[in-house]
Amino acid sequence: MSIRVGIVLSGCGVFDGAEVHESVLTLLHVVKAGADVTFLAPDVAQAHVINHLVGQPVTGEQRNVRVEAARIARGDVQDIALAKADDFDAVIFPGGFGAAKNLGNLAFAKSPDEMTVEAGTRKLVEAMYASGKPLGFICIAPASVAAVALKGKGLKLTVGSNDDDAAGAVRAMGHTHVAAKVDEIVIDNAHNIVSTPAYMLAKDVAEADSGIAKLVAEIMVRAKSGTRAQAANA
Amino acid sequence: MSIRVGIVLSGCGVFDGAEVHESVLTLLHVVKAGADVTFLAPDVAQAHVINHLVGQPVTGEQRNVRVEAARIARGDVQDIALAKADDFDAVIFPGGFGAAKNLGNLAFAKSPDEMTVEAGTRKLVEAMYASGKPLGFICIAPASVAAVALKGKGLKLTVGSNDDDAAGAVRAMGHTHVAAKVDEIVIDNAHNIVSTPAYMLAKDVAEADSGIAKLVAEIMVRAKSGTRAQAANA
Repeated sequence: MSIRVGIVLSGCGVFDGAEVHESVLTLLHVVKAGADVTFLAPDVAQAHVINHLVGQPVTGEQRNVRVEAARIARGDVQDIALAKADDFDAVIFPGGFGAAKNLGNLAFAKSPDEMTVEAGTRKLVEAMYASGKPLGFICIAPASVAAVALKGKGLKLTVGSNDDDAAGAVRAMGHTHVAAKVDEIVIDNAHNIVSTPAYMLAKDVAEADSGIAKLVAEIMVRAKSGTRAQAANA
Repeated sequence: MSIRVGIVLSGCGVFDGAEVHESVLTLLHVVKAGADVTFLAPDVAQAHVINHLVGQPVTGEQRNVRVEAARIARGDVQDIALAKADDFDAVIFPGGFGAAKNLGNLAFAKSPDEMTVEAGTRKLVEAMYASGKPLGFICIAPASVAAVALKGKGLKLTVGSNDDDAAGAVRAMGHTHVAAKVDEIVIDNAHNIVSTPAYMLAKDVAEADSGIAKLVAEIMVRAKSGTRAQAANA
């Protein structure tokens, strides 16, 4: 049976949704590795809509995260609120501001106490973590999703530079931030979590691809090994 | 000096805009080849907006092709009406229904007599062709853009299967349709034009990537050779 990978999208577009390049490159490497892909997204309104040409919010316009994510998915995107850990061998979160605005509120939270993760997203992260299955987080998602949904678990995560505000948020949630270059991944073996900076550092799509390719390769190895417990007993 | 490649986007999303995977993969291969990329799009209203989750038009919603294209481009997209052939060594058109709805009207034309290409897009295609510089067309773009903007020039183009309606449109415009597999490109050496089927045939992103990678590689070789006339005299 093929490895089943969930890819969680947060809309479509770097400034108010999922980063498009990171999402497509994640898909490309997962498909090339022979896995079956299911796209997932919360069926909620976007925090806002940004005109990506001018970089400004569009007053009065509202879009749905799952509906816009379907542009990247070419159609089907499952409601993450209905997703079960049993259905996946691994789940990967591309970045983009959507991960910090729609899957969580890192972009808006004024202090660590205010940081939250969207309910369906949190439920799936908690269930995957509890099952010991591998989770991958790209770009800002290690800070906005992993660090908050798994607060206090003492994860090792990267968003690139130790000096980034998002690295501070990782530490504030009780984790260790590990600096990494754009073509590097950080592996938290104890928690079966892999992260890479991608467009937190990447100057172009080829740089983003270098880390994402490694992240997917590592996630695939871990998905084939099964859960943390199974891997430890093997 | 780096090779300068224009990538023409027709929105953001396979059903009403640029096919997202084809656009990102074109960008990836062009950047990996060391070229400078400029994204281009017409600054016009989309033909319509499709909810990609349910595949149906959204009544009363309007989006701008160039503004939505900026989601793929991460910001800057030049108005194609202002583009000059002098500014590019090659121009590539990814597909998606946007290429048949926003860059042209293939999706709506009831007969070949009705087929048109958006004014700025037509002007750039004609100028690049007149200069002899290489042009690349992916997916439906060979039929909806190349065949119509260069009507009667006797090009060799592919949209994949000879039996596809779009292949009929290519022939109706006075060209030869050449069948090709998803991982193949069709080279029209006399007119310096390369095409590949991508999602006209692709079952997944890896299949689409196989043809797009070859198309970009061939376009880069041709862009480095200069114009048709220069290549012939070399």
